[in-house]
Amino acid sequence: MMTLYDFMGSGNGYKVRLLLAQLGLAYMLVERDIMKGETRTPEFLTKNPNGRIPTLQLDDGTFLFESDAILWYLAEGTAFAPADRLTRAQTLQWMFFEQYSHEPYIAVARFWKHFFDKLTPQQETELPERMKKGYAALDVMEQHLANNAFFVGNRYGLADIALYAYTHVAHEGDFDLTRYPHITAWLARVASQPGCISMDHKN
Amino acid sequence: MMTLYDFMGSGNGYKVRLLLAQLGLAYMLVERDIMKGETRTPEFLTKNPNGRIPTLQLDDGTFLFESDAILWYLAEGTAFAPADRLTRAQTLQWMFFEQYSHEPYIAVARFWKHFFDKLTPQQETELPERMKKGYAALDVMEQHLANNAFFVGNRYGLADIALYAYTHVAHEGDFDLTRYPHITAWLARVASQPGCISMDHKN
Repeated sequence: MMTLYDFMGSGNGYKVRLLLAQLGLAYMLVERDIMKGETRTPEFLTKNPNGRIPTLQLDDGTFLFESDAILWYLAEGTAFAPADRLTRAQTLQWMFFEQYSHEPYIAVARFWKHFFDKLTPQQETELPERMKKGYAALDVMEQHLANNAFFVGNRYGLADIALYAYTHVAHEGDFDLTRYPHITAWLARVASQPGCISMDHKN
Repeated sequence: MMTLYDFMGSGNGYKVRLLLAQLGLAYMLVERDIMKGETRTPEFLTKNPNGRIPTLQLDDGTFLFESDAILWYLAEGTAFAPADRLTRAQTLQWMFFEQYSHEPYIAVARFWKHFFDKLTPQQETELPERMKKGYAALDVMEQHLANNAFFVGNRYGLADIALYAYTHVAHEGDFDLTRYPHITAWLARVASQPGCISMDHKN
């Protein structure tokens, strides 16, 4: 059986838990508390040298890291995998957009505000730029969703999972989603997919 | 013929130019100067709503963005594409590592130091953390390359292209690569691949 090393508050981890649930795959969940440095121990670094969750141990013992690479692995051969060369590239396009232009702003602002009582002076200095770039990412999503029900190929898939994870909790970073009617409607469409679980749902 | 919108100083753009050269694919190069905001014009935003290079227009007119998604598209059906489910996931693992844990530190520090005469006060404040996290990414690479000639499957591929782009110019951000003998040997192996071009080479 696969083993998922994860932290329940992580949107990156939630992506993987969501797809595992929708695929109906059994796995063992091993929680590691990132607030206590439990992914930076010598023992954990032998699993993932980059010291992060989610990390998935496959049946053959291989450890796989990076949430979106794990999604890609799990989806292969299922209805969640994009069906052709162009939709594969477009799916990856939005997944890389998420990790580069969305997560470092929306997830990080949420992390600072939601998991700590008080921001450090350095975080206070950086926060306005993080919020600004987070809203820029939401603007790009809103524009795309004005003409598309889902991110790629007009059906629910990996790009939606990747972007849903931190967008649906963006309010925990004080992002105002009421400005974004198309994103709001898309969030509801994703939440109504069969097998959609909440972020705190354990297998 | 495909059209590549690019900025010659960009490592993200270089990834795409390198693979296009190694595949022997013809394309039209259209340079956009990111220093002058030429990727944020209303006209360019119709091509890529996220306002970045590289952006590739395919033969059917579709615009594709995000360097690593473009690499994936171009490699499909060629010897550069990973051959099985596990190596596909491992290739993406290192490509996402590059965009999340490497590029924001190594490429950004290089951009600040190499393209501007003087850092802003905000950049001065952020630089030590960027350097620290850049070295952390290099540490992860060094450890992996101590036991592997290339990043995935013991042969040159997309993960190497993605990580080579900004690592081979990391000294322009004042990163000291002499500390990393395994990275240094890998850089030489990549540079000796058939069709490897320099960063300023135009098609």
